[in-house]
Amino acid sequence: MTSEKAKAAPIRPLSGFPELLPAQRYVEQQVVATLARTFELHGFANIETRAVEPMDQLLRKGDTSKEVYVLRRLQADDAGADDRAKGIGLHFDLTVPFARYVLENAGKLEFPFRRFQIQKVWRGERPQEGRFREFTQADIDIVGRDTLSFHHDVEVARVMLEALGKLASPDSIGLPGFRLQVNNRKLIQGFYAGLGLDEHGVDEVMRLVDKLDKLDPATVRELLLTEAGVSDDQADKALALATIRTTDDSFVARVRALGVEHELLDEGLDELATLVRACAPLATERTRIEADLSIARGLDYYTGTVFETRLDGYESLGSICSGGRYDALASDGRTTYPGVGISLGLSRLLVTLIQRGGLTADRSVPSVVLVAVTDEESRAGADEVATALRARDIPCEVAPSAAKFGKQIRHAERRGIPYVWFTGAAGKPDEIKDIRSGNQVAADRATWQPPTEDLRPQVVTHTERHSS
Amino acid sequence: MTSEKAKAAPIRPLSGFPELLPAQRYVEQQVVATLARTFELHGFANIETRAVEPMDQLLRKGDTSKEVYVLRRLQADDAGADDRAKGIGLHFDLTVPFARYVLENAGKLEFPFRRFQIQKVWRGERPQEGRFREFTQADIDIVGRDTLSFHHDVEVARVMLEALGKLASPDSIGLPGFRLQVNNRKLIQGFYAGLGLDEHGVDEVMRLVDKLDKLDPATVRELLLTEAGVSDDQADKALALATIRTTDDSFVARVRALGVEHELLDEGLDELATLVRACAPLATERTRIEADLSIARGLDYYTGTVFETRLDGYESLGSICSGGRYDALASDGRTTYPGVGISLGLSRLLVTLIQRGGLTADRSVPSVVLVAVTDEESRAGADEVATALRARDIPCEVAPSAAKFGKQIRHAERRGIPYVWFTGAAGKPDEIKDIRSGNQVAADRATWQPPTEDLRPQVVTHTERHSS
Repeated sequence: MTSEKAKAAPIRPLSGFPELLPAQRYVEQQVVATLARTFELHGFANIETRAVEPMDQLLRKGDTSKEVYVLRRLQADDAGADDRAKGIGLHFDLTVPFARYVLENAGKLEFPFRRFQIQKVWRGERPQEGRFREFTQADIDIVGRDTLSFHHDVEVARVMLEALGKLASPDSIGLPGFRLQVNNRKLIQGFYAGLGLDEHGVDEVMRLVDKLDKLDPATVRELLLTEAGVSDDQADKALALATIRTTDDSFVARVRALGVEHELLDEGLDELATLVRACAPLATERTRIEADLSIARGLDYYTGTVFETRLDGYESLGSICSGGRYDALASDGRTTYPGVGISLGLSRLLVTLIQRGGLTADRSVPSVVLVAVTDEESRAGADEVATALRARDIPCEVAPSAAKFGKQIRHAERRGIPYVWFTGAAGKPDEIKDIRSGNQVAADRATWQPPTEDLRPQVVTHTERHSS
Repeated sequence: MTSEKAKAAPIRPLSGFPELLPAQRYVEQQVVATLARTFELHGFANIETRAVEPMDQLLRKGDTSKEVYVLRRLQADDAGADDRAKGIGLHFDLTVPFARYVLENAGKLEFPFRRFQIQKVWRGERPQEGRFREFTQADIDIVGRDTLSFHHDVEVARVMLEALGKLASPDSIGLPGFRLQVNNRKLIQGFYAGLGLDEHGVDEVMRLVDKLDKLDPATVRELLLTEAGVSDDQADKALALATIRTTDDSFVARVRALGVEHELLDEGLDELATLVRACAPLATERTRIEADLSIARGLDYYTGTVFETRLDGYESLGSICSGGRYDALASDGRTTYPGVGISLGLSRLLVTLIQRGGLTADRSVPSVVLVAVTDEESRAGADEVATALRARDIPCEVAPSAAKFGKQIRHAERRGIPYVWFTGAAGKPDEIKDIRSGNQVAADRATWQPPTEDLRPQVVTHTERHSS
């Protein structure tokens, strides 16, 4: 009777659907735990939303750049018997589902509502480094009913800075230095309006100036003249604004020096200056905050603060952490829900650090101890040792077979398990061997405790692991 | 400029895709943490697999009862330009992806390989109580290369019993009592072979006897005679075997009394007796282990031990936790990977307990403290208090507006936050109010500590919450 769940077919990875080995997955779990703990310290509640949304919600923005995966039940009647099931697709971000969740549960939520959400999302894009078809995002958002004070923009920035700062610690994954770039849509739009552009002109100029990360300024200037039809002076000032970058609120004087006046510009300058000043105390040599007046987040519907984040040495990844303020994250026609949030591209960050930097854990199993088995008859005795250790929260496993002790030690070594326990025969004490040093000493299963640094796997780089 | 991510359309839940409110989600997080911690104590490493598998893998068993969701990229060329992407679907369990993961990474894994996996799976089934289209499973499996000792069957049973036992604690979710039912395919198949049935007859009788949970014995007996073509004596003995249920190894004598002899029967009896004896020490009044010789897990390709689990008072849910031994979990044609595992239907269990039992948390946010704001000018001072508390791992949030203190206290109350912090003005000490008792005392932001039971939300039933 043969029975196989998977056989003979050649197995190859699916491009764009990254998977991790156990030791790498341990690193991801640690990152998720650090993020979750930080968000909870700031009062953010966790939620999960279903993986699917109705297609009309997913395509609402008319933005087809995020290629949606449509679902169909294999046995559904293709003639349309199951329209409801046909009309669903996998979510491509966590904002669309969150907006829907807020509307669906508005009567049961307390506003302002702080939530974090760490889930997979799917996009049928062409895979490349840091761009996947299945990936995990970590989002924080604060949503209000009718109104949401500006200080919440400051709050989400500070919370994400604190979370990234923790990941930068050598105790964590030693995230490289990074730069949080902030801007404000009111500032840009007010500036363009102050230049005399109408609403259409404002949108066109914003769209073209946003191309500065791909095109050189002369080309963008040419496009501003030909496509947006602005004057030389308007083009020069729009480009001048986009070159302003400061790490403090001195950008205000530089914008003022361009001589443009508009009420919305004043509001944007004021908000951005407040944000930069409030984030400044969190800055370090590795954690940098910068007002960058070229940031617009073109296609997304932000209405005030906007965020992007660049990782030192990984600039080709683009922004690893982006977001901003929506005056209407959601609306049911009667009530409007403004929101502000930031989304961290967890897979983009982590899979790249794993692939390029060899980030991993120093063992592939949670076990601190392998309990050796002298012979199969005494397996129950080895199980008792393991039970005693687990009762004191020490992860361990029992050897799979009563092979020679040398073979059992190599079994532990291959997994990175630091200790092997030998049960004492006939009244002799148990002994424990640290297989890194070779030291073997008497040990009491009721009291033995590993050093704290051995209790859980440690995050290391592949290089470190091999040189130690 | 309007900008809305979701609006006017009436929002209704999608049947079969359950979602939780923040306080309910907190319960789910606690359950996941308890399971993960238990599995890790036993040396199981966590992995996640991608949500999709090639359709040929998903349909390998030819079992179309698990309706697969097929994926299609919205902008894919329907004429077949993107065959690869067209040929993928969402996984319907965690066993098929795990078998594929083992083959794909065999050279990088150490065997026997213990893993746990807690992820969503999708089936396009008709939704009903405890049956969803999207749901979470928690699986543990141990897989060997070429061989896998029987003691691992005992191991997975004991680990899952320990995990369920922890969930049964009043400190956890107070899971109702349950019954782990174990059997062994070798026992059944050896018994039928000993009755003189050929391989086809064995399969037929097993399939029909498996219907005893839906049909009465007389009907099944009739089917055995007409459909399987067995004799009266064979039918009577097959039914007699299926009525045997014991909480110890006394089932061996009862099977022997039926006078059937077969080598495979002996092996099955021996394995099952070993399993029942090894699990017996974990039994309590609420955690019961039972050899139930009617359990066969009909459609699944098990080859030895089989498990099912019934929850007291929730029998209509069917088995909440099932699994068994596969002689070939996976095979690449050269090497065979035997495995044994159990899968807990986390959503089936939890969503039902939440809906029927009102399981929830006593607050909807992680915050222990709401820091009140006297006026907007002093918000920075309130932020400093919050920062001081968070530095000592006390989750807190700052009031969203400088409303009257009564209103700020009600803001905390609606969220279930137990304490409100008032920053002392002009040299006066800070004060903290326990809003349950109304007590208000002086407090030092550098040393104040909430009672341990207040530090994190507590799992309660809806009834408890309202009566307290």
